[in-house]
Amino acid sequence: MNVIDLINKTKNSAPLTDSEIKWLVNEYTEGSVPDYQMSAWLMAVCLNGLTEQETLSLTYAMRDSGETLQLDLPLTADKHSTGGVGDKTSLIIGPAAAACGVCVAKMSGRGLGHTGGTIDKLESIKGFRTDMPLAEFEKILRETGFSVISQSGNLCPADKKIYALRNSTGTVNSIPLICASIMSKKLATNADCLVLDVKYGSGAFMKTRSDAEKLAALMEKIGKAAGKKCRAVVTDMDMPLGINIGNALEVEEAIDILSGKTKGRLYDICIGLTADILELAGKGSYDECVDMAKEAISSGKALDIFRRTIELHGGNPDVCEDTLLLPHARFTYKVKAACDMKISSFDTEELGMVSLLLGAGRIAKDDRIDMSAGIIMNTQPGDVLNAGDTMMTLCSTVCSDFSDAAMRAVKAVRFEKINCQPPLT
Amino acid sequence: MNVIDLINKTKNSAPLTDSEIKWLVNEYTEGSVPDYQMSAWLMAVCLNGLTEQETLSLTYAMRDSGETLQLDLPLTADKHSTGGVGDKTSLIIGPAAAACGVCVAKMSGRGLGHTGGTIDKLESIKGFRTDMPLAEFEKILRETGFSVISQSGNLCPADKKIYALRNSTGTVNSIPLICASIMSKKLATNADCLVLDVKYGSGAFMKTRSDAEKLAALMEKIGKAAGKKCRAVVTDMDMPLGINIGNALEVEEAIDILSGKTKGRLYDICIGLTADILELAGKGSYDECVDMAKEAISSGKALDIFRRTIELHGGNPDVCEDTLLLPHARFTYKVKAACDMKISSFDTEELGMVSLLLGAGRIAKDDRIDMSAGIIMNTQPGDVLNAGDTMMTLCSTVCSDFSDAAMRAVKAVRFEKINCQPPLT
Repeated sequence: MNVIDLINKTKNSAPLTDSEIKWLVNEYTEGSVPDYQMSAWLMAVCLNGLTEQETLSLTYAMRDSGETLQLDLPLTADKHSTGGVGDKTSLIIGPAAAACGVCVAKMSGRGLGHTGGTIDKLESIKGFRTDMPLAEFEKILRETGFSVISQSGNLCPADKKIYALRNSTGTVNSIPLICASIMSKKLATNADCLVLDVKYGSGAFMKTRSDAEKLAALMEKIGKAAGKKCRAVVTDMDMPLGINIGNALEVEEAIDILSGKTKGRLYDICIGLTADILELAGKGSYDECVDMAKEAISSGKALDIFRRTIELHGGNPDVCEDTLLLPHARFTYKVKAACDMKISSFDTEELGMVSLLLGAGRIAKDDRIDMSAGIIMNTQPGDVLNAGDTMMTLCSTVCSDFSDAAMRAVKAVRFEKINCQPPLT
Repeated sequence: MNVIDLINKTKNSAPLTDSEIKWLVNEYTEGSVPDYQMSAWLMAVCLNGLTEQETLSLTYAMRDSGETLQLDLPLTADKHSTGGVGDKTSLIIGPAAAACGVCVAKMSGRGLGHTGGTIDKLESIKGFRTDMPLAEFEKILRETGFSVISQSGNLCPADKKIYALRNSTGTVNSIPLICASIMSKKLATNADCLVLDVKYGSGAFMKTRSDAEKLAALMEKIGKAAGKKCRAVVTDMDMPLGINIGNALEVEEAIDILSGKTKGRLYDICIGLTADILELAGKGSYDECVDMAKEAISSGKALDIFRRTIELHGGNPDVCEDTLLLPHARFTYKVKAACDMKISSFDTEELGMVSLLLGAGRIAKDDRIDMSAGIIMNTQPGDVLNAGDTMMTLCSTVCSDFSDAAMRAVKAVRFEKINCQPPLT
């Protein structure tokens, strides 16, 4: 096979065969096809798309480029979100589903850019380890039904290499490429039931609901074609998921939900996603599963599972009762309304960037993060504020000068003016 | 500026500014933008196109990436063909236009792949040098009005680097990229009048007449926008230009035309292109210029100029009277018709590849070529042949086994069967 012929086929919208796609992915992963040829092909895919059959071939080729996870467990579920801001749903859904008898085995990545990562969030709990051997992961799963392990270096090496290239060649934004990247990792981790939460809005890969629905439908098809029980849903990200953004801040909020202290939009989304998992796993009708999920939280079972899981991962389980044991920011700063206003929405991606600026995230892969840093949203879309009311609270230990972060935070608020002058920062 | 932003703009069909294109070309030429980013941008250009303004910016940016030619001559003309098979028109048009008082200063490349290069053809004349200092080039131009110099290494380095990348990333086939590549070199050589001959058909970049017309119109616009007197014409390449393909064989045919021995399609095309140059240079109406071109040949003036130009380039001018002084092939092989047939057309690109296989061309840039090798076409489209009639004669000195070349040559003939069996090779 000749790589230029394959590039030309995609350039001319002629579909590639399964063996052509496998060849291209393998040769690229091994270094025989250079970056500059792969990036030309990726751009052709961005502009001409791939057929469903090609997307499935690409997903399989990337899955098969490395190890796949083989757990000795009867039935496992996995939940994936397509990169959100303030998205701590995994920390709630995992224990809740486990409390209802479905094992949630999650292999997760670290945060990069404006989106957070579940691994980072859990590591804000003192002592919490996620780089454990598979045997230990299985042991925790068998005992509590919920565990999170950091992504193995040998899982989908093709995806790692292709993703890095896409990131530097303007070829991230393509539904079939995003689908294959996510689904190859999900298929490699080999869960029986998959719930895929596709975000849309300013903080997400998919900017519009319509694109999110396309990606969700495609991922569901690919998952089912690969023999999985699979459901994809879409979630609005024009506001952060919940109140807190930042690692320890999000664990704190998750504990508040798991302990039944807080209800609201985040609680509702988590109940819905948990019910999706339970229904896929055959635990009953959707409505019955919603009731089971609510019961898992109100009974305290879900929090107990989270507590025991933290303990088995080497973390301090007492954070479940006393969130003051989590890292707290040394410095805080209140961003206030300059005039009377009504909040319309937030630029969630920008809020993610502010959080990163405060120390909560990484620009480069090896950056250290400030576990205490982040944002507490003191308002929600629809709120009416008087001048001087707090819109959000910025938190950081590594950064005491909030001028840049506050300026950007103000810009991330979309509001209707009521006697307005430029907002105070 | 950020290269990913520029790639995304083109990906989203948003035009780049002049300074953005200049920046991209300069950073790529200097190596700050890597191949894999440039190839992604080039693929986006292939699929989304460029505006005329962007194409002009790209042409200027590539022209300005290196030296430009500044000749101390009153009025110069240049003729360019977009890569043909058996295209020896420059060797005829140059002396003919010079005989009519228009200086034709040609900077030319070597052949690569299935297309030949004017430099290679001239070097089949014993002693002929084309790698001379500019001062000597000017001196010859002042005396004879016609000279050819091999392309300087410092002319359009951006085009050289981009062309090599396009060649290995499936991004050759794009009208704005082809236009900018050709026109940047033409503008760098700085002739006042430009005649551009755009080929279409199997042996050309442009496969259809409609695409050739688009490229021709775009090149003419770019040339005029850059202040040149410019005309672009299109020529059918579904048959070779003339009878001979291969370096010495083509010089021989050019001498036959210049000496008035041969007329026909090649003669007509050369008279037309010469008249185009003369009209652009203000020598009279097109019809007057046609008469002047014919007179240049019938009077023997054009051949005299060719003779003297060969002499000043160090070559043996006696080839003009005795073409047996040109290299002749040691081995020849007649490809015959297997049955009665009518010739429809030729796959000219494949004929170019056969010629290359016989030793007349280069696969890699540094391959040595057999000056005597090539093909003599003994038939033309429309000819009716009897079984056993010669379709073409293969010539080579380096290759005595014609089996592969003959098999491919037969496949390059499109014919209507008349009581036909598979053709003999």
